[in-house]
Amino acid sequence: MVEPATDTIAATRLVPLLKDELDIVIPTIRNLDFLEMWRPFFEPYHLIIVQDGDPSKVIKVPEGFDYELYNRNDINRILGPKASCISFKDSACRCFGYMVSKKKYIFTIDDDCFVAKDPSGKAINALEQHIKNILSPSTPFFFNTLYDPYRDGADFVRGYPFSLREGAPTAVSHGLWLNIPDYDAPTQLVKPLERNTRYVDAVLTIPKGTLFPMCGMNLCFDRDLIGPAMYFGLMGDGQPIGRYDDMWAGWCTKVICDHLGLGVKTGLPYIYHSKASNPFVNLKKEYKGIFWQEEIIPFFQAATLSKDCTSVQKCYIELSKQVKEKLGKVDPYFDKLADAMVTWIEAWDELNPSGASATVSNGKA
Amino acid sequence: MVEPATDTIAATRLVPLLKDELDIVIPTIRNLDFLEMWRPFFEPYHLIIVQDGDPSKVIKVPEGFDYELYNRNDINRILGPKASCISFKDSACRCFGYMVSKKKYIFTIDDDCFVAKDPSGKAINALEQHIKNILSPSTPFFFNTLYDPYRDGADFVRGYPFSLREGAPTAVSHGLWLNIPDYDAPTQLVKPLERNTRYVDAVLTIPKGTLFPMCGMNLCFDRDLIGPAMYFGLMGDGQPIGRYDDMWAGWCTKVICDHLGLGVKTGLPYIYHSKASNPFVNLKKEYKGIFWQEEIIPFFQAATLSKDCTSVQKCYIELSKQVKEKLGKVDPYFDKLADAMVTWIEAWDELNPSGASATVSNGKA
Repeated sequence: MVEPATDTIAATRLVPLLKDELDIVIPTIRNLDFLEMWRPFFEPYHLIIVQDGDPSKVIKVPEGFDYELYNRNDINRILGPKASCISFKDSACRCFGYMVSKKKYIFTIDDDCFVAKDPSGKAINALEQHIKNILSPSTPFFFNTLYDPYRDGADFVRGYPFSLREGAPTAVSHGLWLNIPDYDAPTQLVKPLERNTRYVDAVLTIPKGTLFPMCGMNLCFDRDLIGPAMYFGLMGDGQPIGRYDDMWAGWCTKVICDHLGLGVKTGLPYIYHSKASNPFVNLKKEYKGIFWQEEIIPFFQAATLSKDCTSVQKCYIELSKQVKEKLGKVDPYFDKLADAMVTWIEAWDELNPSGASATVSNGKA
Repeated sequence: MVEPATDTIAATRLVPLLKDELDIVIPTIRNLDFLEMWRPFFEPYHLIIVQDGDPSKVIKVPEGFDYELYNRNDINRILGPKASCISFKDSACRCFGYMVSKKKYIFTIDDDCFVAKDPSGKAINALEQHIKNILSPSTPFFFNTLYDPYRDGADFVRGYPFSLREGAPTAVSHGLWLNIPDYDAPTQLVKPLERNTRYVDAVLTIPKGTLFPMCGMNLCFDRDLIGPAMYFGLMGDGQPIGRYDDMWAGWCTKVICDHLGLGVKTGLPYIYHSKASNPFVNLKKEYKGIFWQEEIIPFFQAATLSKDCTSVQKCYIELSKQVKEKLGKVDPYFDKLADAMVTWIEAWDELNPSGASATVSNGKA
């Protein structure tokens, strides 16, 4: 049986990495008591809290944290009519935090995620591992059987082309979960007691051309490299679907990373996911996604972007057109989503005027 | 510091899996004392020993093992002029063992590989893990972030298409190495003291469309599904290159598995690799491969097979033509290799007359 760590103080560094270059984005509807356990790791960083649901509710943040908090009224005020692209009553609202951040890196975490322990019993500083992942290159163009060759004690194996050993810039670090695994509603219903107790000591690059199910629970990315693709879509209130916000962002992000020659890593770090969400509620949110994804995934697997798409914004606008054209047939929802993708980019560029031109790829297209 | 296991008896099963359906192929030039440590795991199985070098030398096999042994004279006698496709003075000769086997599965291991220990100190039955890998499906069409979904305690994560959860038949299980990692000569020279001490508790499918460096040291495959593609090429005596035998087989195998809808897994099991080979000798063998692979790998990454290629043999003959056409320009060696690929298939079909037609894909092309 895995359990969360209790002693996190012993595991902190003296100088936190990227202290002034990273924001932690947390979507929530409740008091953020979970931050107490993360205090040694998160306190040096700035938090962006996106309050979902009733804006009149007061969210308590533990003493000592440096944060800004946005509720629905703030989002409406800042974005005006463009606020329509930000979901309500769904953790998809977190992407508003990515937009208002002024930092190069984002780490986002759910408020039911606690500090996990490694097999030696040591508290895992998830943020530190994400930063290691994202500051070292990725290997999307060829598979390394000893996993991330940039980790201590590892390297490229025999037969790995030397021309590819420089790697590609890492845009995304996708972390995993001990205890409650990220299962869909049908799997939750069938395996209510399953817990993830397997600590896999690996980080690996998801190869170019391969899609993956990106979970937003424990995720870090380089805002300059890929930020505008991290749109979590239209979910929750007034929408026919939920729990596909991170999946949507993951599909779009991976296609764009592949096009721009950027890397996506998955594996370490683990967080401790404390509580399974209600599978019946989840089933209601998911069921359209469960059959839609059978058409969406082949769409993204086949999607190609033109050579003119030299920035994330251009890639994303091009992708929105393809969504409208190809997925609009699946359901009118995708027409609306394609429009929201355009609104998202407009809002992003409005809030990030210099970034609009700065976000040009430095990878290999 | 990792060390090999000492107690292997406690880790054996009562009934060995696939006892009558699997051969263990071992290429060697020395007495097979290393089998003593493997006795509890290997003794129930039949061994095919391919003796390399001087055929007059007597190779001692520990008492109690059931084996057949082939030296160069045997290979020449059995294959006649077609024996030219089997390498001499190079462990590439092992593929002769794949050809003469009459079993469905092959496990091949080097004679400097010993039993490794898992983090709890228990001896790892590498063969048993390979069999588990190969008897459960692969997931080449979409990435599962919790690794092999068919292992105990794991499953498909949220967002994994349900239509793909049946998986694909697994053709290859590629195991890894603790202690001495499988590095090329330049890396060996630069990091003479590096040891692999990281036990990664994972098995994963290498996605469709992604090549990998396949090492022949600790490898299992389904002979019926992919056997004729497991040709280890022309290496060693009289050839301009060595130490690329398994790489060649891996590139060809992966392209054909992708075409036929078959899966390739990598990760567990680990063996304990005892001794680094001489990096200076290795450099001499490898140096042409080190620059050739810069052209070979893009060739295999771009290779496609026609719809008529419905058996491994047809795929392999088609690939040999492309090798001649595209890689012949790189060096005349590849002309010779392309011819040897055809000879290999002819010899395979001669020794496996029923298999010649039986080896039709049962996967999704």
